[in-house]
Amino acid sequence: MAILVVGSVAYDTVETPCDRRERQLGGSASFFSLAAGPEANVRVVAVVGDDFAPADLALLASRGVDIAGIVRAPGASFHWSGRYRDDFVERDTLETSLGVFADFRPAIPAGWHDSEYLFLANIHPALQAEVLAAVARPRLVVLDTMNLWIETTRAALLDVLRGVDVVLLNDSEARLLTGERSLAAAAEAVRELGPERVVIKKGEHGALFFGRDSRLAVPAVLLPEVVDPTGAGDSFAGGFLASLARAGVGRDHPDAPFRAAMVDGTVAASFCPEAFSVEGLLQRTPSAAERRKKELLAAMIP
Amino acid sequence: MAILVVGSVAYDTVETPCDRRERQLGGSASFFSLAAGPEANVRVVAVVGDDFAPADLALLASRGVDIAGIVRAPGASFHWSGRYRDDFVERDTLETSLGVFADFRPAIPAGWHDSEYLFLANIHPALQAEVLAAVARPRLVVLDTMNLWIETTRAALLDVLRGVDVVLLNDSEARLLTGERSLAAAAEAVRELGPERVVIKKGEHGALFFGRDSRLAVPAVLLPEVVDPTGAGDSFAGGFLASLARAGVGRDHPDAPFRAAMVDGTVAASFCPEAFSVEGLLQRTPSAAERRKKELLAAMIP
Repeated sequence: MAILVVGSVAYDTVETPCDRRERQLGGSASFFSLAAGPEANVRVVAVVGDDFAPADLALLASRGVDIAGIVRAPGASFHWSGRYRDDFVERDTLETSLGVFADFRPAIPAGWHDSEYLFLANIHPALQAEVLAAVARPRLVVLDTMNLWIETTRAALLDVLRGVDVVLLNDSEARLLTGERSLAAAAEAVRELGPERVVIKKGEHGALFFGRDSRLAVPAVLLPEVVDPTGAGDSFAGGFLASLARAGVGRDHPDAPFRAAMVDGTVAASFCPEAFSVEGLLQRTPSAAERRKKELLAAMIP
Repeated sequence: MAILVVGSVAYDTVETPCDRRERQLGGSASFFSLAAGPEANVRVVAVVGDDFAPADLALLASRGVDIAGIVRAPGASFHWSGRYRDDFVERDTLETSLGVFADFRPAIPAGWHDSEYLFLANIHPALQAEVLAAVARPRLVVLDTMNLWIETTRAALLDVLRGVDVVLLNDSEARLLTGERSLAAAAEAVRELGPERVVIKKGEHGALFFGRDSRLAVPAVLLPEVVDPTGAGDSFAGGFLASLARAGVGRDHPDAPFRAAMVDGTVAASFCPEAFSVEGLLQRTPSAAERRKKELLAAMIP
């Protein structure tokens, strides 16, 4: 089984109430693939600029990520800069420089068209649609998006959503996309747009799963300290899809393995905010993940 | 078994993005006792003004609430007025008129000093302490408070907390009381102040339980529509304590019945925001509550 992800491999400059880090490894595809783990066989389709450090690509490769789909183009790498407020939740974007991403056209390497799992990370929906069309017969297609695309490229987003099995949104995006205040009503409205299953991410409040015929609320792992929450949503997606791929789950499966994947995604995401950049994900060990999963389940079952 | 509650029986003027209601029945003791239900044998200690409608007291009595401890004093009843913002979560207090509550000294009716369960609703901590001292040997003492008392009467609050078994706080109050940003760290810090068990209420995101040796996260029941969230926290307390009283649980019991009570409190609270004032609680039927509990448990267990 292989998971193909199209998304960003980028640099982030992040300022929190405690610290500041400049041009550190970030991007949806980076967080996703490291959270999915070395056994997940993740194939990354992305673009970086000629300023991108070879060591950062080597880091991904050293963790079992297939970087053959990351092309290097003349120009600057995608760079996001943001500042978190005192609550470590609200954040202000200070700068978004698309760089080489402005002219990015995803090219799928030979042999990757048969990837069984597809994660369309948060990029322009027209690019998501191109990749979706290029992969022959995926067992499962998962999509993430953001308020920018909902507001500026709604038609293209609605178009790609029709071919998606699971959509991941945060609560404000779900409300923006559907106009529904109630998350239950918003999830139902999203399902009518195509995806049979909907995950609503709520950061420190956990995530909600709306399945074919069941619902599940998973609380976030309670962390003693948050250092940098950037990338936690993509890390959730990595743990979630790796869990489904490991179990060989396709769109026709019942809700049960998706519910289990919600727990695995939550555990994977919990390592991300503990350090800057991808450092928290890199520090994860199998035994630490197992311990967190046990604690999380104990906090879920009354 | 009887539950004694000291708190407010009051009038609320509430404005939401959809509607406005003037001088409707409210107050922590009203929501608490109606949510606890007719079998809970709730005894209310409170004060109302000479403007208080006899029909509103009769309503409480008709639902099995013992109102013998509600005294009528010359002057105006406590009145709170607030306006909810578009998200139905954030709210601005427009006016707080203490009225007869300004000079309130709780008087416990004869025969009520042996009440087994005690809920010290959100009033001045010195009054909470008076009631606590007047009840002989309660099996369990539960306390609620708010940012006003944390900020203005901290010493008195810390004093009463030493005699409390379970404290209910919302997330911002827990942070304000302890100075801890992490809710896990805040709960541990609260436990060091006296209460062995801590419940952190998060509104539409549910509630967290920090027990003697376990934790539980309970999601809120997903409602298709929220009309007026006023009183949901006190309704949670009513369902929570009624569950413990029904099972005869005291402070020395293990965490298990408290975890079950978290679920019962969540179900009770879910009826409150569906209508203005106490109307949602009045519409609750045993079969509707049973159905919601089943749905909630299905959404909690992966």
